[in-house]
Amino acid sequence: MLSETARQIRRSVMRDLMSVAVDPALYSFAGGLPASDCLPVDTLRDCMERVLQKDGTRALQYGPPYAPLKAWIASWMQQRGVDCTSDSIFITNGAQQGLAVLSRLFCDAGDPAVIEAVTFTGIQQVTVGRRLQVSTVPADLQTGVDVQALEHRLKAQPKPHMVVLIPDFHNPLGVSLPEEKRRHIAWLAAKYRVPVIEDDPYSPLRFAGEGVKPIRAFDESGFVVYIGSFSKMLAPAVRLGWIVAPPDLGHRITVLREALDLESSQFMQRVVFEFLDGGHLETHLERLRRTNARRCRRLLDALETYLSPFGARWTLPQGGLFVWVEFPEDIDTRELFHVAIDHQVAYIPGAAFAVSGDQARSLRLNYSNIADDRIEEGIKRLARSVEVWRTQTARNP
Amino acid sequence: MLSETARQIRRSVMRDLMSVAVDPALYSFAGGLPASDCLPVDTLRDCMERVLQKDGTRALQYGPPYAPLKAWIASWMQQRGVDCTSDSIFITNGAQQGLAVLSRLFCDAGDPAVIEAVTFTGIQQVTVGRRLQVSTVPADLQTGVDVQALEHRLKAQPKPHMVVLIPDFHNPLGVSLPEEKRRHIAWLAAKYRVPVIEDDPYSPLRFAGEGVKPIRAFDESGFVVYIGSFSKMLAPAVRLGWIVAPPDLGHRITVLREALDLESSQFMQRVVFEFLDGGHLETHLERLRRTNARRCRRLLDALETYLSPFGARWTLPQGGLFVWVEFPEDIDTRELFHVAIDHQVAYIPGAAFAVSGDQARSLRLNYSNIADDRIEEGIKRLARSVEVWRTQTARNP
Repeated sequence: MLSETARQIRRSVMRDLMSVAVDPALYSFAGGLPASDCLPVDTLRDCMERVLQKDGTRALQYGPPYAPLKAWIASWMQQRGVDCTSDSIFITNGAQQGLAVLSRLFCDAGDPAVIEAVTFTGIQQVTVGRRLQVSTVPADLQTGVDVQALEHRLKAQPKPHMVVLIPDFHNPLGVSLPEEKRRHIAWLAAKYRVPVIEDDPYSPLRFAGEGVKPIRAFDESGFVVYIGSFSKMLAPAVRLGWIVAPPDLGHRITVLREALDLESSQFMQRVVFEFLDGGHLETHLERLRRTNARRCRRLLDALETYLSPFGARWTLPQGGLFVWVEFPEDIDTRELFHVAIDHQVAYIPGAAFAVSGDQARSLRLNYSNIADDRIEEGIKRLARSVEVWRTQTARNP
Repeated sequence: MLSETARQIRRSVMRDLMSVAVDPALYSFAGGLPASDCLPVDTLRDCMERVLQKDGTRALQYGPPYAPLKAWIASWMQQRGVDCTSDSIFITNGAQQGLAVLSRLFCDAGDPAVIEAVTFTGIQQVTVGRRLQVSTVPADLQTGVDVQALEHRLKAQPKPHMVVLIPDFHNPLGVSLPEEKRRHIAWLAAKYRVPVIEDDPYSPLRFAGEGVKPIRAFDESGFVVYIGSFSKMLAPAVRLGWIVAPPDLGHRITVLREALDLESSQFMQRVVFEFLDGGHLETHLERLRRTNARRCRRLLDALETYLSPFGARWTLPQGGLFVWVEFPEDIDTRELFHVAIDHQVAYIPGAAFAVSGDQARSLRLNYSNIADDRIEEGIKRLARSVEVWRTQTARNP
């Protein structure tokens, strides 16, 4: 009775483990939420008020994608080095809908696609979850995806229909691609004529180092398609993001998106435009970056103090929301999870992000939405959990 | 480079014709919008204010489906005769996302499915548009879908994976299924163990009189899955709807939906709950029903005066947004459309809704979002267009 796609849905590692982690007293590094205490509640309230006052009826009605918002995004992308116009901008419900639409634009079930060996669960859902024929490329923890391995995949037959990558502050790895790799990837997309989808919700959240332009900025072929989102840089509940794609794909993108849920909220599009046009974005981003940087620093310090004795290593993000931790080989982070929960600490085991390989000794930590003064204690408890788990495992090998 | 699905997207009849119909001076019966002048702008503004005041941070953050909203919907569905609990309710972005999710739950590309021969374009998109193997059932203009023909389809091999029907104030036909047909359809779903998706955005818009319960109310098998929406009964821009489905499908529904766009706006879920819980729905629906009934009456009167001389017939809706008009055989409503636009009238040609057959002499009229005093003039102009078209055609046969 169910589709083959639905039958192949299994209970996920993450979902099962996270259903345990519901205690609000938990020291949780498990989520991927932007800092709750930075959400611009008052400014958004004012923007909503103004939108309803100006043209409340049109804001609550059906309507075409809001042209001023598309124009703002086009101009912002231009400032980031991307050659585009309003006609290249397609409004979506956050980055995930961009992934869902582009996956359908380029691939049917069974078509070959390339994703990273360790990647965001939402990218897995629009590839593995759609029963595409997925192959993977590895990444290193300093510079991200292995571009030689990528070229090897692009040369393979049957030729992949698309590649999906996260350029900045990778989820879950926390790494960013250096400019050289971006240029190389844009060149590969053009050379092999394979669409490369650049999923970029995090780049505005840089708190250290010099920003690098998106891969799309180095592309003149039209084969790099960019996805952005307001969820992390503004607020998740606006449910808005965008695709930058060649205008000649516009009709198909529009029809594929309409089939999913018709359109994004007129109201939210106008509210977000009011926020951006009012010049509130930079102030907000500054606050967000400061907060994230401070929490990241505290987390890295705590890892140094409490986890380096176990031989753990971790990535050093310059922005975004995540740190990736790798333990020596005797640790299994899925088993450890239950001990950690007993110690009131939560994280996401690496296995949740593993498309190939098991990532049994890795885990992802989020630092953006935990109070500053709980970070050290949380990591201390994680360290204690490792000790307890080792003792238990030594006793019952 | 594109998926086979994307390659098969053609420019649609409706999209092409409607791109012509952008003049605001137009007498437009073409849309499917709820009455703009009834949108509850002030009440929703108050609800938004309260939501942000109570818990603005959580309202703007990611979060699970809002439990009080699910509970309200469950209780409302119970009042409409549907045996369900909160665990059976799945929040979506309007009815279209419900269709998209359920289509994927039950069918992969190539799987057989049954839809009506004349139906809503959004239902075509999640069936024909996904390259399902679609067969159709006809409907009559008094009582809707032909239940004998449906049983015939359900007996066929390969067995259909799903059926999609609109029970009330059909789009585009305007008809509703009598109770007897609903009981019969529920019985067929159980007998043949084929999921019947009941797409019901319009039933709360009954002008007067006692409504008939949803098909789902007559089903004890779990094979009837219901879709509702706040778009027409409250406001399109809240982008919220729901699925009523057996809880044991919940995990799969949740995963399929997350893959599309993660979740619906926490903010909008809370705002709509505030509206419903504040007791504003009945007042709003009363106003909407009065307005729609009045406009429908005016439209039917104008059709009688201006179109009956041409031998046209039409449906007599008791609610919803649409009237379906059929002309005698010498009229082609796609050709007529261009003459109508010259006379500043717009409608949707029947062909846009035709899955089988051409519906060349039919058209859909919407009465909910045109000012009362423009209805008669609009239909008068439509009649004049028919005259002009006939003269032209007689001259150049």
